[in-house]
Amino acid sequence: MKDKITQLKDLITEMRYYGTAQGSLMWDLWTQMPSAGAAYRHNAIGFISGKSTELIQSDRTKELADYFMENDWRGHEDVIERGMIRNFLFTYDQTTKVPAELQVELTVLQAKAQNIWKEALQASDYEMFKPTLTEMFELQKKVADAIDPHEHPLQVLSATMEEGIDIHQIERLFAEMKTPIVNLLKRIQNSDKQITDELLNGEYAKEDLIDFVAYLSEAIGLSKENSAFGEVQHPFCSCMGPRDARIGMNYDNYKMAVWAGIHESGHALYSIHCNDQVADYGLWGGIGGSVHESQARFYENIIGRSRAFWQHFYPEVQKRFPKFQNVSLDEYYKAVNAVSPSLIRVSADELTYSLHPIIRFEVEKAMFDGKVTLDELPDLWNAKYQEYLGLTPPNAQKGVLQDVHWSMGLFGYFHSYTLGNLYDGQFHHALLKDVPDVYEHIEQGNFSSLNNWLTKNIHQYSAAYSPDELIQKVTGEELQVKYYIDYLEKKYQSLYQL
Amino acid sequence: MKDKITQLKDLITEMRYYGTAQGSLMWDLWTQMPSAGAAYRHNAIGFISGKSTELIQSDRTKELADYFMENDWRGHEDVIERGMIRNFLFTYDQTTKVPAELQVELTVLQAKAQNIWKEALQASDYEMFKPTLTEMFELQKKVADAIDPHEHPLQVLSATMEEGIDIHQIERLFAEMKTPIVNLLKRIQNSDKQITDELLNGEYAKEDLIDFVAYLSEAIGLSKENSAFGEVQHPFCSCMGPRDARIGMNYDNYKMAVWAGIHESGHALYSIHCNDQVADYGLWGGIGGSVHESQARFYENIIGRSRAFWQHFYPEVQKRFPKFQNVSLDEYYKAVNAVSPSLIRVSADELTYSLHPIIRFEVEKAMFDGKVTLDELPDLWNAKYQEYLGLTPPNAQKGVLQDVHWSMGLFGYFHSYTLGNLYDGQFHHALLKDVPDVYEHIEQGNFSSLNNWLTKNIHQYSAAYSPDELIQKVTGEELQVKYYIDYLEKKYQSLYQL
Repeated sequence: MKDKITQLKDLITEMRYYGTAQGSLMWDLWTQMPSAGAAYRHNAIGFISGKSTELIQSDRTKELADYFMENDWRGHEDVIERGMIRNFLFTYDQTTKVPAELQVELTVLQAKAQNIWKEALQASDYEMFKPTLTEMFELQKKVADAIDPHEHPLQVLSATMEEGIDIHQIERLFAEMKTPIVNLLKRIQNSDKQITDELLNGEYAKEDLIDFVAYLSEAIGLSKENSAFGEVQHPFCSCMGPRDARIGMNYDNYKMAVWAGIHESGHALYSIHCNDQVADYGLWGGIGGSVHESQARFYENIIGRSRAFWQHFYPEVQKRFPKFQNVSLDEYYKAVNAVSPSLIRVSADELTYSLHPIIRFEVEKAMFDGKVTLDELPDLWNAKYQEYLGLTPPNAQKGVLQDVHWSMGLFGYFHSYTLGNLYDGQFHHALLKDVPDVYEHIEQGNFSSLNNWLTKNIHQYSAAYSPDELIQKVTGEELQVKYYIDYLEKKYQSLYQL
Repeated sequence: MKDKITQLKDLITEMRYYGTAQGSLMWDLWTQMPSAGAAYRHNAIGFISGKSTELIQSDRTKELADYFMENDWRGHEDVIERGMIRNFLFTYDQTTKVPAELQVELTVLQAKAQNIWKEALQASDYEMFKPTLTEMFELQKKVADAIDPHEHPLQVLSATMEEGIDIHQIERLFAEMKTPIVNLLKRIQNSDKQITDELLNGEYAKEDLIDFVAYLSEAIGLSKENSAFGEVQHPFCSCMGPRDARIGMNYDNYKMAVWAGIHESGHALYSIHCNDQVADYGLWGGIGGSVHESQARFYENIIGRSRAFWQHFYPEVQKRFPKFQNVSLDEYYKAVNAVSPSLIRVSADELTYSLHPIIRFEVEKAMFDGKVTLDELPDLWNAKYQEYLGLTPPNAQKGVLQDVHWSMGLFGYFHSYTLGNLYDGQFHHALLKDVPDVYEHIEQGNFSSLNNWLTKNIHQYSAAYSPDELIQKVTGEELQVKYYIDYLEKKYQSLYQL
């Protein structure tokens, strides 16, 4: 088996090189490419993607896959090597079922659709995006059908992005968490306390936000040695190598910039804190889907909206933004955690956030169930927002067009944000058991006990464990709703004196 | 032949996609990559380069090359298709003689050597760079030997970068131009007129230089739609697609920023002004070597140091940089054209510039002739600077380490800068015959008659003609020394009232 493992390591290294080339072409496309270069660039990306698919569909890959499917690797001693094989078979299984031509078609369409989506978003014109969205939706159905024609297409697509995901389990978890969140929201709305985030609004010089986000991300563990920032519409983090994270940012306003900055830094830390063996075996970049989102949202919310965090950083805020000089830490902390249902997922408060991906999950389910047409999509979207959050989007920009995901062909991904919150509640519970004084360290601006715990338990392994294995390993049980709800209850009871 | 031409077009398109992926990985490496990502990135670049080499060494490529070598394509009617075939056979001939392993070794070493060179330059420490330079020099000798063991290695390497180049012709041209330049320099140094560029020195805010270079480059024809800027040590221009030029800039001082900005914009305009058929046939990017340098230096010097150019732009200079408010256009124009022998090629004045590449050509010739060892290199370098320019470098940073080229494996390239000047003299002569009032248009800030002439005669064809064909086509004769010397004589006679 040793020989085969070495062969597999070489193969995966090559696949990752293609991924890095694609990553570089995409990062550049998104952050700085001259517009006249776009058409050619899309074709170049399609070509490299095709080469990568050719490799995974080659005889060389098939022989290795066949070998490991026929030999018991699950008993193999080395955790990372075992993880590499598991991860490879997962990817192989998903990818080889999609014909190479379909994969190329998808990559070319992704690049095109993202540009059209950007224009449609700017124009707030759903009709402008609809033909391309239709194309993408049809193509994704074809992809699902090619992988498994007998399974629900949303299940198939979700499972390509996250190992072991089960849309029936998601339905169950979402049903279990929806009620307590809606109840908590009602109690907050009926409470005497009126907390708004108004004092965070207003004009900020973009340069100041750029500098502050760079300062925060460095304080929590990033540096120019392992990460770089660019500007995009919708913030994201992508990894171009084991020690090379790229963060696309939007500095339009304070809330967006600061918490997207912390969120994407969370993604980045997860990626670059893998151990050397993981890096060497091409397992870097973390587990896609819920676990990755959990690491981003852990930093963004559980840490980045905690009192301890701002106890340390608030003097710096006041220094950099004089408007806060007469605002107390307590007022600022409350504004940061104000609950106020809104239309835009990425600027939602921590409590109501989870409802946004739940809506999208239900919308996607309806799309793939054939219960809603692409023509009716905005109406369904708007109706659900009215039902869950009590708000109706005034236009497509603030409604169905707001997220980049569908233009990238990501159907079956949104739920991972809310699942990420569930992981976070459970990880947070485990963290406090292991490091009870972690918030005291954070108050001192010392992030090493937190980062050490995350690295030791989660980050260092990157994609070596499956999500199910990881949550079991770190917390001793499978994914639960209760820890996250407990965390929310405790936080908002104190904040709103419920 | 039609079928074969279509097959060739497809093949070249694929090769260019690999080139674009490599270009993106390199541009990113140079302009923004986190340092911890470098080692992995070098390997990724080596991998993509290896794939590209595999393609050019494939049976599919060989069959096409054999077909065109056996069939008379030179009589083929379509200029661009003919150019595609010619260009393909030129590249094929050079590349297939280098074993794939050597090519990968070279690409990996290039990436590594550039980083070490940067550190050595910073530390002004030749010994720090010497082992890597030795490695590169030995590797390049191996490359030359693999291509043609019977020819002089500098001839072989030069010919890989420029079709039809002949180092004996270069020796002849350089000998012919050296004496009049040195004589003109002596007459200037003995003249009553004392002109210095001192008033251009001093501190400039980097942001102001960035803005001004962006303004100038846009005024002469670039835009955000077709180009993007980044920051590097040594300015360069690279093309990532037919309509996508990238300019790496250094904003350390006014002279460097402004004329490097114009120079690199000249490269960029050459690339993006190819016609659609050229773009489609993968012939975009221009002819490498002397002709590309000629297009950069034409804009940098013949246009960018002309009185007409500054007659138009000087009010903008005065507006942006208040220190010039009490400086007349005449004083500024003189400072821009002051002759003053210096140690640094990239900041040399227009007249003495040509001597720098001549020195490097002679140094490289001596290296490949075995007349100088790598240990003795700085001494030879310093001696030649004393002999030609009357100056001895005080350290390696201002001497033998100053240029990035050798770290990229570019031996046999420097002479193209001086040859570019010769092309420029001849193109300038032809331009004035066709558009006698071009300088009046430039005075008005109208660059279209100039750009139209360049596009019509040179840019639109990109790499469709060989350098020899192009100069014949545009000027009706082969490359001459006299036009450039005439241009210099006329310019400096007037400036220094000789």
